Amino acid sequence: MKIAIAQINFFVGGLEGNAQKMIQSILRAKKGGFDLIIFSELALCGYPPEDLLLHDRFIDTAERILEEIATVCEGITVILGTVRRNRGRGEKPLCNSAAIISNQKILGFHDKWLLPTYDVFDERRYFEPGNTLQVWPCGKHRLGILICEDIWQHAGYLPLHYLRDPIAEMKALEPTLLINLSASPYQFQKPELRTKVCSSSARALNVPMILCAQVGGNDQLVFDGYSLVMNAQGELLKIAKGFEEDFIEIDLERLPPKITFSFHPLSDLYQALVLGIKDYFHKQGLRKGCIGVSGGIDSAVCTCIAVDALGKENVLAVRMPSPYTSSSSMEDAETLANHLGIELVTLSIEEPFALFLEVLKPLFADLPVNVAEENIQARIRGLLLMAISNKLCHIVLSTGNKSELALGYCTLYGDMCGGIGVLSDVTKTQVYALARWINREKEIIPQSCLDKPPSAELKANQKDTDTLPDYAIVDAVLQAYVEDSLDAEEIVTKYGIPLPLVQELIRRIHAAEYKRRQAAPGIRVSKKTFGVGRRYPIVQGWC
Amino acid sequence: MKIAIAQINFFVGGLEGNAQKMIQSILRAKKGGFDLIIFSELALCGYPPEDLLLHDRFIDTAERILEEIATVCEGITVILGTVRRNRGRGEKPLCNSAAIISNQKILGFHDKWLLPTYDVFDERRYFEPGNTLQVWPCGKHRLGILICEDIWQHAGYLPLHYLRDPIAEMKALEPTLLINLSASPYQFQKPELRTKVCSSSARALNVPMILCAQVGGNDQLVFDGYSLVMNAQGELLKIAKGFEEDFIEIDLERLPPKITFSFHPLSDLYQALVLGIKDYFHKQGLRKGCIGVSGGIDSAVCTCIAVDALGKENVLAVRMPSPYTSSSSMEDAETLANHLGIELVTLSIEEPFALFLEVLKPLFADLPVNVAEENIQARIRGLLLMAISNKLCHIVLSTGNKSELALGYCTLYGDMCGGIGVLSDVTKTQVYALARWINREKEIIPQSCLDKPPSAELKANQKDTDTLPDYAIVDAVLQAYVEDSLDAEEIVTKYGIPLPLVQELIRRIHAAEYKRRQAAPGIRVSKKTFGVGRRYPIVQGWC
Repeated sequence: MKIAIAQINFFVGGLEGNAQKMIQSILRAKKGGFDLIIFSELALCGYPPEDLLLHDRFIDTAERILEEIATVCEGITVILGTVRRNRGRGEKPLCNSAAIISNQKILGFHDKWLLPTYDVFDERRYFEPGNTLQVWPCGKHRLGILICEDIWQHAGYLPLHYLRDPIAEMKALEPTLLINLSASPYQFQKPELRTKVCSSSARALNVPMILCAQVGGNDQLVFDGYSLVMNAQGELLKIAKGFEEDFIEIDLERLPPKITFSFHPLSDLYQALVLGIKDYFHKQGLRKGCIGVSGGIDSAVCTCIAVDALGKENVLAVRMPSPYTSSSSMEDAETLANHLGIELVTLSIEEPFALFLEVLKPLFADLPVNVAEENIQARIRGLLLMAISNKLCHIVLSTGNKSELALGYCTLYGDMCGGIGVLSDVTKTQVYALARWINREKEIIPQSCLDKPPSAELKANQKDTDTLPDYAIVDAVLQAYVEDSLDAEEIVTKYGIPLPLVQELIRRIHAAEYKRRQAAPGIRVSKKTFGVGRRYPIVQGWC
Repeated sequence: MKIAIAQINFFVGGLEGNAQKMIQSILRAKKGGFDLIIFSELALCGYPPEDLLLHDRFIDTAERILEEIATVCEGITVILGTVRRNRGRGEKPLCNSAAIISNQKILGFHDKWLLPTYDVFDERRYFEPGNTLQVWPCGKHRLGILICEDIWQHAGYLPLHYLRDPIAEMKALEPTLLINLSASPYQFQKPELRTKVCSSSARALNVPMILCAQVGGNDQLVFDGYSLVMNAQGELLKIAKGFEEDFIEIDLERLPPKITFSFHPLSDLYQALVLGIKDYFHKQGLRKGCIGVSGGIDSAVCTCIAVDALGKENVLAVRMPSPYTSSSSMEDAETLANHLGIELVTLSIEEPFALFLEVLKPLFADLPVNVAEENIQARIRGLLLMAISNKLCHIVLSTGNKSELALGYCTLYGDMCGGIGVLSDVTKTQVYALARWINREKEIIPQSCLDKPPSAELKANQKDTDTLPDYAIVDAVLQAYVEDSLDAEEIVTKYGIPLPLVQELIRRIHAAEYKRRQAAPGIRVSKKTFGVGRRYPIVQGWC
């Protein structure tokens, strides 16, 4: 049995376009003599469709288009993810389903059993869990079809325990092939983890398994692709490309030998950011981005990502020196722009800064200089970037990193301006790692950006360490508290950081919630990002 | 049996403080010879605690404090809402429970059965539904205890249908009193609706019923209070105050006669906004707010609300005229400030505006004037307000209304600046209604604010209607599409608005998603607010 696995970049809500992409793949598979073609979870509507699912017309359209797709499935079996009405009992009106179509007929559906409702997932908001299981005959094979989370429980990698385990219950049905339709968002080192889950599933059922994954960026989420085929021993036989569309094939009667494949976590991280930005722009029909380049490492890494995502002709770098901008920062910004071959414009903020101090004099009077003067500078820069955006149709890319966002070391409506945050989920430590990786063959980011101590340059001789502990400490606490959910005492034990410092950092993380609530959406690349998937009250009495 | 109903403003996450408030009420009830005292849903942790529930230490602390509360319950029965660990099977580790404490002993728990997971509710993210039901003996009575949503299914007012119905199943247990612990967020005309649900429950079981409600503002949500007692015929016997703490009592053996009570929807709306703002400030220990007053109706209504929430001595009005500001706007702002007795400062934005145009000349060159020039003015104002905020510790109140937010008729980082949006969930039509209500006894808001056509005054002779249809049309579509989930065709049928206009407004609503994602949180007062409870992709191909 010849099987095609279509790894496609679907457009959330773009039902007609997604159907066209699938129909083209089906026609290609028919032409190629394939018996079966597989698409990913919720392929028809893209993942995650969110509250679009609440529109009756959206569901009606999805159900109608599914029928239309069936009409082209002559002589081939097609498995694709879609939303459909729940026709059984239950609290929710929809199911997250795999449609099994053969020879122009919709044979039936597998409704996803395990509906993740944690972190970035909200599936119980929309879907009723499935409760039946069957194998689907296809040629001489018996297909076990499951959707994403359905296979994760058995592998033991979940943060919770569902009442049922589809893999365990599948055993008695004796499938000869396991197929998993997936829409599993990227996070750092998740592709490796997902591969382990697949391997575990194949071994549990002692059958070959196919994972068909979604690829592409949808708002904050990036799907990495890496669809794959494993043998009954859970060994990797084929793997699709990461971070782009692909079409791979397997002949079940002639399984190839196992292959060795290594993921490159840092390269994956970089590619995830590039794809996230690219799709954020291109799926909206936007082309041009602009970035405030300070000469620091964050904006340098952002600019490299933007150039890879949008093309160098579409990226405008804007240098906005203040009285506190060092000459080395000016030079580093220029060197970066030269290395990348992008346009650089310079707009001094000295005069607007002076004027605002003058305008505000009646109110500021003799009050001591404080953060207000620093923020005015950041907000003038934000205003200039947004004016360029409004006049020249560039979308501003926000350059702040996760460590800054965590502690609120950033200016609301200032450096936080932007349509999308490139590094919002990348810690300062990871920003340096990315910079070194970008420079692995030749210097693109000026070495001095990596060498000099980080500074916002909003007052004389300012360093980040004036108001923040060393980033190694910040990032350790950030990882432990936000991503790994350790409490203060556990962090002290694990990292040997003094308790009062850990508590102060945790307090600052929560105190900055109000700023993050108004932050640009950022590309999610970690286990726990700010924004989507993390829901804390702004006003709260806990910490 | 003498029963006390404690309607308290709890602080989300403030376990110790909430416990102290309850202990004081318990001591008061003991002193008053009460047999039973009742607190609201999740009283111990406040509602909604969101991801604080994911912290083990939070749950440990809640369980420990519950034991401590029990120690003061000598000679009295106490029913209170709390979170506790799910000790049975199930996907989620927690239950949303009512603890029944009598004579210092925790007798047991009712775990909430119906867990709302739609709109602003995420209960399936945290909680496992309860599945047992019992009546609790108390004196000669048999108490049926349910939590909020548990009683809504039977009344038929829900947008979904749970598999089980606690009211129906309660019947066989023959309670003599129904008690509902509630944390039901305010929305326009919801208090009336909730009263109907209570009446329906009492009649279904043919027993008296008590609703003990939470009161207070928690981020976007406001809880209106209005705890109540009904007789077995579902007639109102007692009702607590709206929008403030209260302590009401009932003697089951001497039920009073039924009372008549009318809600005042507009007064409730106003009070909800005042309480939302008040608690947003005071629960954070903040005192002072500042508002950009344009002379228009939105900022006028906002200022009245701010004065009622914070006190006139804590509200600073800032007038920031541009070349396009009319003299009548200047006068109206001044009249308003005089009527309210608040400080008014004036900062002209003419010079900064001219300077920015100069600074941007190299980039703007000979490009035609567009929205960029308008937004620069709005952003200068945002910058000035934020500078005042940073220097003088005032929190900026954002004044935009729901109609503007819906269509993106507002400037990101400009008039959208602020810690909290006062009118974000109030349509322009409702803003006028509120203004008339505020002026019901004497002119507080200058009449000309109500009479003149709305204008952003960001260019010469600008009117809102230059780029927007009449607000009556905008608000009809907004209500129908966002709140009532009608589709375009249904809106045409209902309101007779031409289809292309309806479609264009729907398109604009979705196109503004990116702006709203960075909006200040706004007080929720409608069935469907932007922000919390409404989750749409920014980048999507549906509409």
